[in-house]
Amino acid sequence: MGEEPPGVEPVVDSTAADIADMRIRGAATIADAAAEALATQATRSDASSPDAFRSGMRAAARRLYETRPTAVSLPNALRYVLQGMDGETVSELRASTVDRAETFQRDLERAQAQLGEIGANRLRDGDVVMTHCHSTDALSCIEAALEAGKHVEAIVKETRPRKQGHITASQLREWGVPVTLIVDNAARRYLDDADHVLVGADSIAADGSVINKIGTSGLAVNARERGVPVMVAAQTIKLHPDTMTGHTVAIEMREDSEVLAPDERTEITGLEESEDDGLTVENPAFDVTPPRHVDAIVTERGQFPPESIVTLMRELFGETIGEPWET
Amino acid sequence: MGEEPPGVEPVVDSTAADIADMRIRGAATIADAAAEALATQATRSDASSPDAFRSGMRAAARRLYETRPTAVSLPNALRYVLQGMDGETVSELRASTVDRAETFQRDLERAQAQLGEIGANRLRDGDVVMTHCHSTDALSCIEAALEAGKHVEAIVKETRPRKQGHITASQLREWGVPVTLIVDNAARRYLDDADHVLVGADSIAADGSVINKIGTSGLAVNARERGVPVMVAAQTIKLHPDTMTGHTVAIEMREDSEVLAPDERTEITGLEESEDDGLTVENPAFDVTPPRHVDAIVTERGQFPPESIVTLMRELFGETIGEPWET
Amino acid sequence: MGEEPPGVEPVVDSTAADIADMRIRGAATIADAAAEALATQATRSDASSPDAFRSGMRAAARRLYETRPTAVSLPNALRYVLQGMDGETVSELRASTVDRAETFQRDLERAQAQLGEIGANRLRDGDVVMTHCHSTDALSCIEAALEAGKHVEAIVKETRPRKQGHITASQLREWGVPVTLIVDNAARRYLDDADHVLVGADSIAADGSVINKIGTSGLAVNARERGVPVMVAAQTIKLHPDTMTGHTVAIEMREDSEVLAPDERTEITGLEESEDDGLTVENPAFDVTPPRHVDAIVTERGQFPPESIVTLMRELFGETIGEPWET
Amino acid sequence: MGEEPPGVEPVVDSTAADIADMRIRGAATIADAAAEALATQATRSDASSPDAFRSGMRAAARRLYETRPTAVSLPNALRYVLQGMDGETVSELRASTVDRAETFQRDLERAQAQLGEIGANRLRDGDVVMTHCHSTDALSCIEAALEAGKHVEAIVKETRPRKQGHITASQLREWGVPVTLIVDNAARRYLDDADHVLVGADSIAADGSVINKIGTSGLAVNARERGVPVMVAAQTIKLHPDTMTGHTVAIEMREDSEVLAPDERTEITGLEESEDDGLTVENPAFDVTPPRHVDAIVTERGQFPPESIVTLMRELFGETIGEPWET
Amino acid sequence: MGEEPPGVEPVVDSTAADIADMRIRGAATIADAAAEALATQATRSDASSPDAFRSGMRAAARRLYETRPTAVSLPNALRYVLQGMDGETVSELRASTVDRAETFQRDLERAQAQLGEIGANRLRDGDVVMTHCHSTDALSCIEAALEAGKHVEAIVKETRPRKQGHITASQLREWGVPVTLIVDNAARRYLDDADHVLVGADSIAADGSVINKIGTSGLAVNARERGVPVMVAAQTIKLHPDTMTGHTVAIEMREDSEVLAPDERTEITGLEESEDDGLTVENPAFDVTPPRHVDAIVTERGQFPPESIVTLMRELFGETIGEPWET
Amino acid sequence: MGEEPPGVEPVVDSTAADIADMRIRGAATIADAAAEALATQATRSDASSPDAFRSGMRAAARRLYETRPTAVSLPNALRYVLQGMDGETVSELRASTVDRAETFQRDLERAQAQLGEIGANRLRDGDVVMTHCHSTDALSCIEAALEAGKHVEAIVKETRPRKQGHITASQLREWGVPVTLIVDNAARRYLDDADHVLVGADSIAADGSVINKIGTSGLAVNARERGVPVMVAAQTIKLHPDTMTGHTVAIEMREDSEVLAPDERTEITGLEESEDDGLTVENPAFDVTPPRHVDAIVTERGQFPPESIVTLMRELFGETIGEPWET
Repeated sequence: MGEEPPGVEPVVDSTAADIADMRIRGAATIADAAAEALATQATRSDASSPDAFRSGMRAAARRLYETRPTAVSLPNALRYVLQGMDGETVSELRASTVDRAETFQRDLERAQAQLGEIGANRLRDGDVVMTHCHSTDALSCIEAALEAGKHVEAIVKETRPRKQGHITASQLREWGVPVTLIVDNAARRYLDDADHVLVGADSIAADGSVINKIGTSGLAVNARERGVPVMVAAQTIKLHPDTMTGHTVAIEMREDSEVLAPDERTEITGLEESEDDGLTVENPAFDVTPPRHVDAIVTERGQFPPESIVTLMRELFGETIGEPWET
Repeated sequence: MGEEPPGVEPVVDSTAADIADMRIRGAATIADAAAEALATQATRSDASSPDAFRSGMRAAARRLYETRPTAVSLPNALRYVLQGMDGETVSELRASTVDRAETFQRDLERAQAQLGEIGANRLRDGDVVMTHCHSTDALSCIEAALEAGKHVEAIVKETRPRKQGHITASQLREWGVPVTLIVDNAARRYLDDADHVLVGADSIAADGSVINKIGTSGLAVNARERGVPVMVAAQTIKLHPDTMTGHTVAIEMREDSEVLAPDERTEITGLEESEDDGLTVENPAFDVTPPRHVDAIVTERGQFPPESIVTLMRELFGETIGEPWET
Repeated sequence: MGEEPPGVEPVVDSTAADIADMRIRGAATIADAAAEALATQATRSDASSPDAFRSGMRAAARRLYETRPTAVSLPNALRYVLQGMDGETVSELRASTVDRAETFQRDLERAQAQLGEIGANRLRDGDVVMTHCHSTDALSCIEAALEAGKHVEAIVKETRPRKQGHITASQLREWGVPVTLIVDNAARRYLDDADHVLVGADSIAADGSVINKIGTSGLAVNARERGVPVMVAAQTIKLHPDTMTGHTVAIEMREDSEVLAPDERTEITGLEESEDDGLTVENPAFDVTPPRHVDAIVTERGQFPPESIVTLMRELFGETIGEPWET
Repeated sequence: MGEEPPGVEPVVDSTAADIADMRIRGAATIADAAAEALATQATRSDASSPDAFRSGMRAAARRLYETRPTAVSLPNALRYVLQGMDGETVSELRASTVDRAETFQRDLERAQAQLGEIGANRLRDGDVVMTHCHSTDALSCIEAALEAGKHVEAIVKETRPRKQGHITASQLREWGVPVTLIVDNAARRYLDDADHVLVGADSIAADGSVINKIGTSGLAVNARERGVPVMVAAQTIKLHPDTMTGHTVAIEMREDSEVLAPDERTEITGLEESEDDGLTVENPAFDVTPPRHVDAIVTERGQFPPESIVTLMRELFGETIGEPWET
Repeated sequence: MGEEPPGVEPVVDSTAADIADMRIRGAATIADAAAEALATQATRSDASSPDAFRSGMRAAARRLYETRPTAVSLPNALRYVLQGMDGETVSELRASTVDRAETFQRDLERAQAQLGEIGANRLRDGDVVMTHCHSTDALSCIEAALEAGKHVEAIVKETRPRKQGHITASQLREWGVPVTLIVDNAARRYLDDADHVLVGADSIAADGSVINKIGTSGLAVNARERGVPVMVAAQTIKLHPDTMTGHTVAIEMREDSEVLAPDERTEITGLEESEDDGLTVENPAFDVTPPRHVDAIVTERGQFPPESIVTLMRELFGETIGEPWET
Repeated sequence: MGEEPPGVEPVVDSTAADIADMRIRGAATIADAAAEALATQATRSDASSPDAFRSGMRAAARRLYETRPTAVSLPNALRYVLQGMDGETVSELRASTVDRAETFQRDLERAQAQLGEIGANRLRDGDVVMTHCHSTDALSCIEAALEAGKHVEAIVKETRPRKQGHITASQLREWGVPVTLIVDNAARRYLDDADHVLVGADSIAADGSVINKIGTSGLAVNARERGVPVMVAAQTIKLHPDTMTGHTVAIEMREDSEVLAPDERTEITGLEESEDDGLTVENPAFDVTPPRHVDAIVTERGQFPPESIVTLMRELFGETIGEPWET
């Protein structure tokens, strides 16, 4: 790293380094930076032939991809831009690529607001929404509903271990939404008072599965059993192109200490902290909700049944088998 | 109170006072004391006729019942003892009542151990058990399995808001059981590793519903979806006789502060604590799991499908419509 | 008929004739008359031996049974009374039989009110109840809830073809219950506003099936899908003893004209009424709801999961294989 | 109204007026007229620039749209035609628009027959079809099956409140199809005799939901429970483009008198007609069947699982966020 | 063995030996012999006190039980007889025990025919029954239906690995029943033509589970999905008393060669038979069907929902915790 | 036949004859030959106008299609190639057609390997896969997983009647995969040990149904009930274009003797083989699994939820209503 591959512009390398070092972070920020870098690569490329141009673009994309292969918005942005690279001359290729990158960036900037309006259309005046975790995509739906003059109330699951429900509650209170806060265990009981379950997504797979904060799948199963529709709010940068070729999304395992403080552990085991106290803490960040437990995925490009999201992925990313930046 | 009804022995009144004032507490302790009081009433009664004897017994039962009508083990004990009052003379009535009370107390003493052995029979060597909350009835099944030489592992849900899962984990570690601790949100994911869900019960209704710690019903729905059988361990003092006549079990609502500390509330609302901050915390202690999501209820008198528990209730308590201590 | 079998009292024969000729009709009235007739038979029997007494009783029961073998309350009453015939002398047999008949009649008189109180206990203040057809047993639950000071609202299905929902609506309005009337097709939509489905029963089978007005089973399937519990209100005279031995309940097929007026038929077929217009009307009076779609059966002897009702049937009727009045 | 916006041809305004005043009515007729009006607008436009042409087209579409925004075929036709407006000169734009409108009209004319042939392919010789309400799209499938020499029988639900089942029965009898007529309540019982449930649609949403005559969703839930596949016959003019952006379809509430005649009301309430008789009649025209209870949607462009219909909508209408006739 | 415990009659020992050595085999034969042995023990006992008599009876039962603890009919018979031992003198104890044994034997002799009549009542004229494996209890239902003049047809699953379906088919053909033979894999497809699934049982557990020939549970799951009711025909000697205390029924693993002939194995592995060819054959004789997939269990004492069978077990065997023959 | 239609090249006729006579057989081989024949037709066509060229192509396609209209890969190849025929001159039409045919053939050659890599991505290291029948597409997924260094184990259903599971087992053993062989009846029991069900497909319909070896649908229903995901591996030549227009796939009925040897039949019926022995054997080769029981279809073009496969079909084959080779 630090040594750019032949034909790759320095700015690509520097963006890659910033992503790798987490100076650039957050799904939207990473996606925007990656598109920007590809546009720069296209602009500055001095390739003498279409093949050389394409080869440079692929090398740039590969360079960027390899920094954080599990960040879903990264391959998403790269694939989207490369998918638009079209033409028979270097000049045409350059123009189409830059154009595609700009489209991506412009769409990205407006995506959450558009998604919010679409999601808000599913909410009726007076509806009660149950939330899980904290998702700005999900909240944008409520915000747009409020702006459209609808009264909305919320039942907010606290979302252990990190209690991001508190952030959600805080935002909703700021907007004046009446909030009922419950522990995650109380969800089934309060589903009887809810008109919608509304959650965000960490990423979405081509088989229609929704990868989201741990607890989402259990909530969705109960929502189906109680007859409450489940709505997932997710910008298209959450669509995971690698899953089109069957790849599964790796689930991050987080620190034990989010679940169990050292003194709690000691109290349970009666032992000083040690490797062999027979107590394991498992703390996965996300789980996988199969499409049959989800009613709709709302994106900035419209709403989709989860079983159809692959169609949108094909439109955005094409069908290339294998990563498009590989030879 | 303090003024015993005519024909009621002072000891009954004093036991009633102790129950009312929570000097006598805990399902088994209350049940034992109530049976003891009825036996004393029967022994000491100077009733001159069978009717007078019965009337005194009913008055005593009523006196006791009214102290804490929501404590499931109290009407349970009273009904069981009155159900055994039989004979045509005062002497026969006295003997049968005392005998019935002693049977109740003796059975109660052995109940948890017997239940544990029965529950253990459902566990195979090597099984992994997922637990919710802390229940000595449930743990007795694991203990008996261990004593029978079976290797058992446990996945312990922490059980917000009060994290009684930590008590469960601590007990299991004491017995050397390997424990995996998870947040409640992670349950569906780890159900794939579990052979049983094993929980206790706060009370059990005649329609087969299981009232237990909040979160039980959501867990049971997911267990059914994942193909994992659900086993409820509950002594017969948890069977709620009032539900035979359609009464529902009142669900205790607990303090907000178990869910949300004052500083957390302030952080969410940005307001000083006040009545009108638009944030409600709902903290029910229990929820209701319908029988179709439970595979077996294990009692000290054998295992039952939940739909059959009413049969056991009829055997233990008879069918009297209305409280048997009412005229 | 008209020629009583040897040993059968004339009054039995006359009651039988009244039942056969529909001068005695209605489930409760028939049951009461049958018990009365058996009591008279027992009282007046001049049997010289226990065997002769029993033989006479069986003959009387058989005489009564054969008048309307499909009237569920008839075998129910006969079995219940014969089940109580016990003793070693004619005198003991007579006394026990008369006593049993009187118990049956007394219980029957109070049954609906008791059932109502039990059913009312399942209803909470403010609940919304969806009804199908017209059932005084079901209505007695609402009446008792109102008497207990609970506010109840009703969604009343009109119940084609005979629109008995109008009778239900009328009774509820008389009691001041707010009523929303809907066509049967609108049931699923309004289930989202209902806390209970509450229906009566034509009869109940030993396998837990509920035979009730056509449309009940489709409603129950939708109620399960929507998460609304289904409660069946049925006195024990609706329990069908023949079903203990596997018999199914014959479903009455009613007149076409309830479904289709002659002029409607002519308009559809363009033909004068004739046998061969290719248009068949099927008009079954009842359908069968399997136990898995019912949450509780409420009787005057308590509430039961449908899978347990066979236990109550065994208590009331004993286990005799074949009709007890057969040799 | 009556004052056409600048650049909008008078004929557009007159068509709009006819639609508004219901002189033009019926899904296909409205759609055809709207396409015709847009073609005329395109033909007669004297726009001096591509932008002016497009602006005029959008204004014309807006003028038409606002007449009856809830008529699904109206935005459908408008979007389809605008979606085909393509070119860099006024001349090209005109040609492409007119061509698109003609395609729409030609396709529309053949749609029902084509749909019928496709639907008929799903029916085997000897099949029994259960219908709900009256739908010419659904009937066209049966007609085509008959023309292909297949024997088909029908179980026709009468479909309260308006008994459109009679119209269906009449049409089927005309074709010689043996018909069994049942009340809606009898559906679950007769599903055991049916090989298919076949219904039309009022409109179809992007999340795969089918909006159709009240009672469809309850029927579909029962069909799934009984193992009978559900087939929806719907021309693409029933696809609701607004739902792509999350809009829900407003459900028309119809007159009480369809459900309850004034004299019936009086008989129920015992009151003269008045506002405060405590009796509400709810009479929704349609309900919403979620995609998981539907097996296939048959259109003139092929059959689709309901979860995929959004793909067809995107092909036909494009993805424009917001109405394409808005700025 | 061969050395009878003190107080145990030689005939008990000899019966025990015959059971152990499989000279006495078959569920009914074993049960009959065990009851006979206990009756003989009771008759011949020279116990000088009630305690000594009971002790002898328990010893005899224990002697018999230990011969084949997994044969369900053995503990069943022993428990049933001991359950009837009642009285205050040796003479009374003897009489009650002998009487109970005789009742058991008499009931056993008539059980299959009675069961058949009860099961036949569930079958209607013209019904099609799908069978799995070969069960004389199941066949007795069809035989009784035929004797009652009903026309019945059968779809017979061949039931790999041992193809006992051929025996079933042969018996049914002998009775003139039209038979359609299918491989087990074809079951779901032909369920659409079946009105009932009818199977026997190896044993039945107190939690309502049915242990029967491998493949039963998969068939029952599909029958539920297809809407076909599942009926289990099982005499009460199949009820497994040990399961009342939570014991699970051990599943016999049978020879590989039933599944795979040696030459087939060689062909697959390309190796001579050896331990390490990497190919395992699993051949369990039975599987476990949970009660929620079964509609009725038909016994000679009536039909029961599977969730209620525990009630019958309690009636027959009492509630003794632990084996009644243990001290 | 043998007389080629006007404009059809002799080589097309000869290929058609080879397909008809089964000299060319197997899904991939037929598809390849058909594409080749169309390319030759295009190359050699001496059509003087675009219309004549197209007419010749259609005639050639029709000639080929009619040889084996039930062979799914045949219309698939024909439609795919015709779908690519594009241009305004004969020369352009020829070039585009030949190019399309070559693309088809090249893709076909690589399809199974690509499909295998995609399917392998769904398998994790250590996973246990349950298979049904023998499918090289399904096996290619396991092969690719092994090549990627993952450890995989297999539970192989023998798949009566033809026991193709033995072929699967043999192939897996060759690759060193540990194999557990079970009879089909044992599937539900061993699903608890499986992480995936993996099957191939005979053909796939536009409504998302999977037509595959008899037994697949019953397995899929059980897999859903047990919580095990079902994965179908199928190259796109298995997608059945005719189903886009509602056609159902005819299910081949195979010889009785695969199920029942003549001597077995004689033993069952006790008769010499004859027509009227009352024993029917039904031996369908395939069954239909509805999309709701399948989690993903893996093709060489990516994975799809079954409800989305129609989208891929539309991409590959276009939307032509009616066969594209018909006028």
